[in-house]
Amino acid sequence: MLLNELRTHYTDQINPDNFEGKTVTIAGWVYEVRDLGGICFVVVRDREGKAQVTLVKKKTDVELFNAARRLVRESVVSVTGNVKASDKAPNGFEIIPSRINLLNEADSPLPMDTTGKVEAELDTRLDSRFIDLRKPGTNAIFRIRHEVLKNVRKYLSEINFIETSTPKVVATATEGGTSLFPITYFTTEAFLNQSPQLFKQILMSGGMDRVFEIGPIFRAEEHDTRRHLNEATSIDIESSFCDHFDVMEILENMISNVYSSVKQNSQKQLDELGIDLEIPEKPFLKLKYEEAIDIVNQNSEEDLVWGDDLGTSAEHIVGNDVFERTGQSHYFIIDWPTEIKPFYAMPYENNPEISKSFDLMHRTMELASGAQRIHHHTILRERIESQGLNSDSFDFYLDAFRFGMPPHAGWGIGCERLLMTMLGAENIRDVVLFPRDRRRLSP
Amino acid sequence: MLLNELRTHYTDQINPDNFEGKTVTIAGWVYEVRDLGGICFVVVRDREGKAQVTLVKKKTDVELFNAARRLVRESVVSVTGNVKASDKAPNGFEIIPSRINLLNEADSPLPMDTTGKVEAELDTRLDSRFIDLRKPGTNAIFRIRHEVLKNVRKYLSEINFIETSTPKVVATATEGGTSLFPITYFTTEAFLNQSPQLFKQILMSGGMDRVFEIGPIFRAEEHDTRRHLNEATSIDIESSFCDHFDVMEILENMISNVYSSVKQNSQKQLDELGIDLEIPEKPFLKLKYEEAIDIVNQNSEEDLVWGDDLGTSAEHIVGNDVFERTGQSHYFIIDWPTEIKPFYAMPYENNPEISKSFDLMHRTMELASGAQRIHHHTILRERIESQGLNSDSFDFYLDAFRFGMPPHAGWGIGCERLLMTMLGAENIRDVVLFPRDRRRLSP
Repeated sequence: MLLNELRTHYTDQINPDNFEGKTVTIAGWVYEVRDLGGICFVVVRDREGKAQVTLVKKKTDVELFNAARRLVRESVVSVTGNVKASDKAPNGFEIIPSRINLLNEADSPLPMDTTGKVEAELDTRLDSRFIDLRKPGTNAIFRIRHEVLKNVRKYLSEINFIETSTPKVVATATEGGTSLFPITYFTTEAFLNQSPQLFKQILMSGGMDRVFEIGPIFRAEEHDTRRHLNEATSIDIESSFCDHFDVMEILENMISNVYSSVKQNSQKQLDELGIDLEIPEKPFLKLKYEEAIDIVNQNSEEDLVWGDDLGTSAEHIVGNDVFERTGQSHYFIIDWPTEIKPFYAMPYENNPEISKSFDLMHRTMELASGAQRIHHHTILRERIESQGLNSDSFDFYLDAFRFGMPPHAGWGIGCERLLMTMLGAENIRDVVLFPRDRRRLSP
Repeated sequence: MLLNELRTHYTDQINPDNFEGKTVTIAGWVYEVRDLGGICFVVVRDREGKAQVTLVKKKTDVELFNAARRLVRESVVSVTGNVKASDKAPNGFEIIPSRINLLNEADSPLPMDTTGKVEAELDTRLDSRFIDLRKPGTNAIFRIRHEVLKNVRKYLSEINFIETSTPKVVATATEGGTSLFPITYFTTEAFLNQSPQLFKQILMSGGMDRVFEIGPIFRAEEHDTRRHLNEATSIDIESSFCDHFDVMEILENMISNVYSSVKQNSQKQLDELGIDLEIPEKPFLKLKYEEAIDIVNQNSEEDLVWGDDLGTSAEHIVGNDVFERTGQSHYFIIDWPTEIKPFYAMPYENNPEISKSFDLMHRTMELASGAQRIHHHTILRERIESQGLNSDSFDFYLDAFRFGMPPHAGWGIGCERLLMTMLGAENIRDVVLFPRDRRRLSP
């Protein structure tokens, strides 16, 4: 068992009150070596923080002292020593070492700075993500992501959702419109799935009642923006016997829950990022599509007509208007024209021009889309054909509507956008470990 | 809010003691209609069970009675009525309906039977998965899968692992040997990742210390067996400052934990499947590779020599031998020849012919592979080249080893095999919603 030998504590588990005089072993990276001649300070960083190792020349074995002063920054070490309270040391303690085990020496110069003193370009950081992640700020983002996913699952499981995994390799496009990445699948052509949409609907026919999936989705769109990725993580739900209002309520409760949990459990990481997280107030405002169009036309030189989609600048105009009026960043846009929504969105019975679909918006961008879905086979087949798609290639999906499909509704929310808006990240690539875009396929 | 109108309770939330005389609304599928002339029984099935709706002709509105007797099997209904205790009804109660809302009528005949009276071939069941899932036994499998994943994450999070997502679209093969599915990624060729291996190791250099990922992996192998898939769900961990013994302990604790949780929380589903789950005893036996070879040679006509891999029949011979001697289905095979393990497995310092790698075996098949990894840059580069791979194409990975890579170890376990061995499923496709193999790309 190597772990017992190399580490007894993370640095944040040690404190001067309970550990004075005790022997500990920490493991991490050499953050800094300050050699003042008669005394040498080695700051060791692990995932949870930093600890100062202090060596006084006169009181230290010569070999150990010389080994310490020769340590190269970002090398990996395990240090065993006694804890001593010290007002001058960070966190109020220092470690007087009896052993420094150099586990792996770092080359120099480093491909980028780890102290935060020199700002690196995003591309440099992504090229050397293994160094970038050592910065507490970058580390904090992915700790919060863990907390977000944990609480999304916890909330959905508590209200009877079952976790599922659906195929990423598929024969047919989900919506026809979006571009897909083609795969050579043995002797045939297949595609990377752009959404679990059709599968989660099939599961409703299978009586699974409430399902969720958190997994990768792939879109071959040639975007080059700060909020699009070609491989992203989607959080999807589908729920039987529900309409769009039921699942909007689930969505706003989930968002509110996740914000609360992050505020409660990730305060250290929020502090590291300088974020004072505000919990969104429920219920979120429900703005009708036609009201959104009016707001855009009144507040800009745009002249949108009913049936136009909202572009990026229109979204910002509406988002800012809502924020000024309500102080809230999150709101829904509902009652979208049927024609600009996917074929599976259900039109209102009394006004089929309008669909039971919604977008969840953040002041700065779209976060989620959802709808009550069509559950009648013949209507659905008509809608597929009216969008110019070949309904035969959807038989694997349409069959599920012929033999007992319940009414159902659902949504999908981009995990990265949820995180990005929560943390105020400038670029979506900041919240992805190894982003994939048109120009980036490595690391 | 449609849900309030269509369902107040799942069928298993109703009982004769607390609900007598109360009004409830259930929603589900028409499982059975028994029309006896003067009385008509409609059995409604939802995700959680079944309930009997009873209509006595003399006491029921004519239209309601006629609507009930005309219900087509597997149609979707919402039924409102009063609960009445009844010794003869399943679960001790029946519902006397005031309203039956036919939400979606099913076509007939059904593509397959849902009562379990007629056994269907696996291919028929997978073609009509939306019907197959309505069978309580099939439903039970995916409920248990949810419980397994929930407890895997809970256990790993408790011991400081962070959930991560790494790219599925990659430029380089992880191990060279296995076949990959090629993708057209804009103007270049890319591949579907066969394992998060290289990425989770990079994260160790990034100081993330302990990470896990549960996600899809893709292998273009032309298998046609009952235990291989071309798209599978892998549970992967990587942990810094650990050796192979540390992560074997994590693995056996996780397995034991998951079995216990399923036994505790999914008893209803286990009963449905007729499974009396036995919790594996810890620690699992650690059998050396050379001992395994001896067992095979002593118990069969095979004549394996040191350096040979263990085939399917060899695995069975060893598994049965261990089971006969210990009564346990789970065991490790350790100390594998370095040459038959991937390049990243660490050779023993005092005997580099043997590597610090292990397989977790179940009596019936291999479940997981792991190892302490090489963490020194030059040794790793040599190992990559000695396996005939071009080390230049691994620079994105090798760079992470030059600037402070800690010692680390990890493993990957197939989620489907974990579930399959737990439930004694005959075919791995039984535990996947929509399996992908050489012959199947739909639904």
